[in-house]
Amino acid sequence: MAPPLSPRPLSNILLMSLVPVASWFVVRPLLDPVPPLPALWASVGFSIFAFIATLYLVPALGPTFVMKANLKGKDLLKVYSDPIPESQGLVCASIYILLLILFIPFPFSTSIASLSGGGSKIEGLLGAASLHHELSVYLSSLLSLLMATLLGFLDDVFDIRWRHKLPIPLIAAIPLLMVYYAEGGNTHVVVPIPLRPFLGLLVNLGPLYYLYMSLLSTFTTNSINILAGINGSEVSQALIIAISVIVNDLLYLPWPFDFRIPMHLLGNQIEVEVGGAWHAGMAYGSSELVGRHLFSLYFMLPLVGVCLGFMYHNWYPARAFPGDTLCYVTGMAFSVVGIQAHFSKTLLLFFIPQIFNFLLSCPQLFGIVPCPRHRVPRFVPDTNLLHPSKTVFGKRPPTRLASLILRIFATLGLTELTVDPTNGVILEATNLTILNFLLLRLGPMNEKKLVQVLICTQIAGSVIAFVIRYGLAGLVYDGDRR
Amino acid sequence: MAPPLSPRPLSNILLMSLVPVASWFVVRPLLDPVPPLPALWASVGFSIFAFIATLYLVPALGPTFVMKANLKGKDLLKVYSDPIPESQGLVCASIYILLLILFIPFPFSTSIASLSGGGSKIEGLLGAASLHHELSVYLSSLLSLLMATLLGFLDDVFDIRWRHKLPIPLIAAIPLLMVYYAEGGNTHVVVPIPLRPFLGLLVNLGPLYYLYMSLLSTFTTNSINILAGINGSEVSQALIIAISVIVNDLLYLPWPFDFRIPMHLLGNQIEVEVGGAWHAGMAYGSSELVGRHLFSLYFMLPLVGVCLGFMYHNWYPARAFPGDTLCYVTGMAFSVVGIQAHFSKTLLLFFIPQIFNFLLSCPQLFGIVPCPRHRVPRFVPDTNLLHPSKTVFGKRPPTRLASLILRIFATLGLTELTVDPTNGVILEATNLTILNFLLLRLGPMNEKKLVQVLICTQIAGSVIAFVIRYGLAGLVYDGDRR
Repeated sequence: MAPPLSPRPLSNILLMSLVPVASWFVVRPLLDPVPPLPALWASVGFSIFAFIATLYLVPALGPTFVMKANLKGKDLLKVYSDPIPESQGLVCASIYILLLILFIPFPFSTSIASLSGGGSKIEGLLGAASLHHELSVYLSSLLSLLMATLLGFLDDVFDIRWRHKLPIPLIAAIPLLMVYYAEGGNTHVVVPIPLRPFLGLLVNLGPLYYLYMSLLSTFTTNSINILAGINGSEVSQALIIAISVIVNDLLYLPWPFDFRIPMHLLGNQIEVEVGGAWHAGMAYGSSELVGRHLFSLYFMLPLVGVCLGFMYHNWYPARAFPGDTLCYVTGMAFSVVGIQAHFSKTLLLFFIPQIFNFLLSCPQLFGIVPCPRHRVPRFVPDTNLLHPSKTVFGKRPPTRLASLILRIFATLGLTELTVDPTNGVILEATNLTILNFLLLRLGPMNEKKLVQVLICTQIAGSVIAFVIRYGLAGLVYDGDRR
Repeated sequence: MAPPLSPRPLSNILLMSLVPVASWFVVRPLLDPVPPLPALWASVGFSIFAFIATLYLVPALGPTFVMKANLKGKDLLKVYSDPIPESQGLVCASIYILLLILFIPFPFSTSIASLSGGGSKIEGLLGAASLHHELSVYLSSLLSLLMATLLGFLDDVFDIRWRHKLPIPLIAAIPLLMVYYAEGGNTHVVVPIPLRPFLGLLVNLGPLYYLYMSLLSTFTTNSINILAGINGSEVSQALIIAISVIVNDLLYLPWPFDFRIPMHLLGNQIEVEVGGAWHAGMAYGSSELVGRHLFSLYFMLPLVGVCLGFMYHNWYPARAFPGDTLCYVTGMAFSVVGIQAHFSKTLLLFFIPQIFNFLLSCPQLFGIVPCPRHRVPRFVPDTNLLHPSKTVFGKRPPTRLASLILRIFATLGLTELTVDPTNGVILEATNLTILNFLLLRLGPMNEKKLVQVLICTQIAGSVIAFVIRYGLAGLVYDGDRR
């Protein structure tokens, strides 16, 4: 067996074959005839570059993190204790944001379009007037991402306690909120059909809308952060959510070919037929909606590139750890697209496992049930298997509320209790996380298997999300415009 | 004598009296009647907040830097060796950027103006169309500042070697360049009168203009960084340059009263009479020029606040060190205003001491003369005085080029050589920095005196800059429009 810390091998053939492909995608919008949605081609190219850069830079920079800045961690669930580079999310985030900045001229410059000889007509998507506006929105998103990166890295360097870091994403969201306000952003939301007799079609949330936006960023960031602890868990969550958002975005693009979504299978009356430029899929020809989902793709495609590249090194047994930086940046990226492209409700549907994990964790997060420093599963070196870890009620027996909650959770199969046979008092309970829950229900398994199960859970969550969004949402919303 | 590391005392009366003043300035634009240039009032308020926040947060956060992240330094020019918090520029930069973000709605939102009941008329400075454009420019500047902060902090954490860090500001300037390009930025420059017969009134630099912008940011950042080494040197340079830029900006504002600049004293034929709203000082009624200098003020005023607050703690004997972060952020701030407000040539005039120091340093920077790790003056504990430090030619005698340069410098009084009396070979030379030059010319002095001399030099440089800009520039430029 190779020593655990040797970086994973990289093939030069991969590098040599991917660079030309990526370059071609980036250059394609400049060549005649200009393809439809030229900036999207460039975005795909940049995403491949993001993948390559992450793949090669993480192992190249890792030793510097360990040596120069003492940013290293011990893998808690391994027999060896070699130091592993921490905070590699910083490398990912830097690549991601730098590429997003270099991407700016493609969607937001009329010069690019005119370079290709096609005149200054760029797809009719964005008029010159709204171009400046769109650019402001894009830049404010970058600012928030960069703040999330800086704050995430500070968290790694200063090792901020988790109770203190919960509100950090609020700070990173400030640029989003400020620009949304300065640009006179819409604070109206569509009211679900059953409530319309009371509230009307639209209701203006006003300042509450800003509260909602800041809470969204706090949720997306922290919910990924608390579902952590095993190799590959953070990055695989981010990857699946990003892919889900991309699939959703693709539904709204003006496809050149016809396709038909079998909505009747999902209980909808209407068949959705999609096709032809500007038919724009689910956007029903609304160029505004196409623009929003393009915006989302510009952020999600490179994120997938970065996550895939990093996952190679973070996969069991991990050669690099993401640190908090990765959770901050991916969480903020999801908030950005949810807010700016106006599909935050759909976005939250892709967080079903995170919501489940959050609700399950609440008793421990709010101190009703004791919360040890680490809630990761327990590693048994002899069998190489993970078992559910436990929180122990020491001298202080559980309060009435804690006992009640734990007994309900135990009845639902969410936790397993150890009870004093003499008096029925709870002595121990498995920690309230989705990882321990999965181990409890599916039996002990090794770390690699567990992360695979987690990925499957995330994918299943996304499938359910699509069913809810495009099947059931028709019951409470019409028009499918958000 | 108090132990050196005890933070400097802060008066609560100062805090209690400044907070209401700052709040009043911030709220003033919202009150009827709306003052002229409402956002400028808010900017002054935010700058006072920047001062207060820096003053109180630097000592509050310093111990965390030392304990948690090992970011501490020993003061080389002191008898004691207590650890002093390093990288406090990060605190300054965070306060600065966060306040600039919170400031966004004041100049860029029509809602603020309408809040005050004055309708949506905001000064006529910015039409709604150019508002989005201006916001993009502002946001790209913030992105560059934030990248400079992150990179500066990484430099502090990873302790990057100076040869490797020279190009770092280029990366931080990328957002500026990208947005400048996407917005179809002007790459024409006005040709000096003597060259006009050959080049015409305007010449399009094209890509060279982008090169110029990136080199400007590299210069402003690194030139402050290499003029460092004694308590208060970095922050005082930044402070004087920022104040100089502000004075220059004020000349272009629409003052409600008449004033007259005695230009004939500076050799100009025309008297400059200034007065009345929209007469706009040197802007001669050009609202575009007023807008640019307002933009510059929005960045420079809070920078002065931050620098003043930090200077209190960095003053001899220093209780906090700026780290590279402060140099990166202040340097980038100067580049931002120089580029975005189109007065980069004027800006460079305020860098006369830095240009002198850079030219003087070149033989050491480019390896012609050996460059020791630290070129700070030599501290003599017995007298508490600083003397010029020396670079020693060890076994390798100086090359011909080095000897030639050093002899010329010595003739000009810029360095002092120690020569082998037997064969005339140079054995030692004082290090080629402005600090050693000042000590050489003015004799040994203590650290506090030296930084005071440095400040006077910087002020003298700014006075010369104004004379050149408004006196002599009339010989090579007309119209005074850039």
